[in-house]
Amino acid sequence: MQLLLIHSDNIEYSAQKKTPVAEEEIIPQDSLDEALTVFCAVESSDEDDIEGTVKKAVAEILETSKKLGTKNIMLYPYAHLSSDLSSPKAAVEVLKKMEAGCSCEEDYTIKRAPFGWYKSFKLSCKGHPLSELSRTITPGDVEEKPEKKQVTHEF
Amino acid sequence: MQLLLIHSDNIEYSAQKKTPVAEEEIIPQDSLDEALTVFCAVESSDEDDIEGTVKKAVAEILETSKKLGTKNIMLYPYAHLSSDLSSPKAAVEVLKKMEAGCSCEEDYTIKRAPFGWYKSFKLSCKGHPLSELSRTITPGDVEEKPEKKQVTHEF
Ligand SMILES: [Mg+2]
Repeated sequence: MQLLLIHSDNIEYSAQKKTPVAEEEIIPQDSLDEALTVFCAVESSDEDDIEGTVKKAVAEILETSKKLGTKNIMLYPYAHLSSDLSSPKAAVEVLKKMEAGCSCEEDYTIKRAPFGWYKSFKLSCKGHPLSELSRTITPGDVEEKPEKKQVTHEF
Repeated sequence: MQLLLIHSDNIEYSAQKKTPVAEEEIIPQDSLDEALTVFCAVESSDEDDIEGTVKKAVAEILETSKKLGTKNIMLYPYAHLSSDLSSPKAAVEVLKKMEAGCSCEEDYTIKRAPFGWYKSFKLSCKGHPLSELSRTITPGDVEEKPEKKQVTHEF
């Protein structure tokens, strides 16, 4: 899984049009202030261990939110972060489980933009040194493929 | 090179703080309406053929701008799109050459956000089906590495 985490003054989206893989029951538009926006691409290798991937991703997201001092999280599916995507079915399962996992945290507000829709969005990134982070999450019990590097960017 | 092209109602940025690889002579803040925002990560393989990479990238960007009917382009360096970045020196060279290449087009307005700075930004993505595209540009005269896939996402 590829994650791009952005500390945002505001994030808002509005679903415009279905793609062929659109999920059906959605919140068509929503917004969140003072949020950690989490752009996510679920990858094919994540399908080998969905629970493990979700657990690692949730831990990473919550740790980042605590460092930044925000309890507002917007999960935002973003296929463009990877060239090796999972099936749409697995992606929706993972995203829903990430939403549920983050929601276990007390006093947090978790929102999730719909998968498989063309969406307009507005995003404002705060711009401090920790306001943009990328993370590669690999399933824990799967041997890392040689061509995949574990990468942490803080710039 | 990894490109993420976003058809935007507006893009604005403000340089906040230098990183160790910051370029010096910059436009510290700027904005553009009705623009194609081009997030770019220059990759190590691009260093093998900088001219060829620039030429392909410029052609791709201009083609997209014509499809979308916009003559406003904001080039925005974005390291988080790749796990295999070029040197900062090569990145700045490529970005400046992309800016110059796009600027040859008549009536176009080309702007470039500074490389190597933490920046706040605001972006609004239009959300129509062609408003978010990703492209992988590979240098033409270099044999493609087996682990690199040429990928075109339109979702
Ligand atoms: Mg990648």
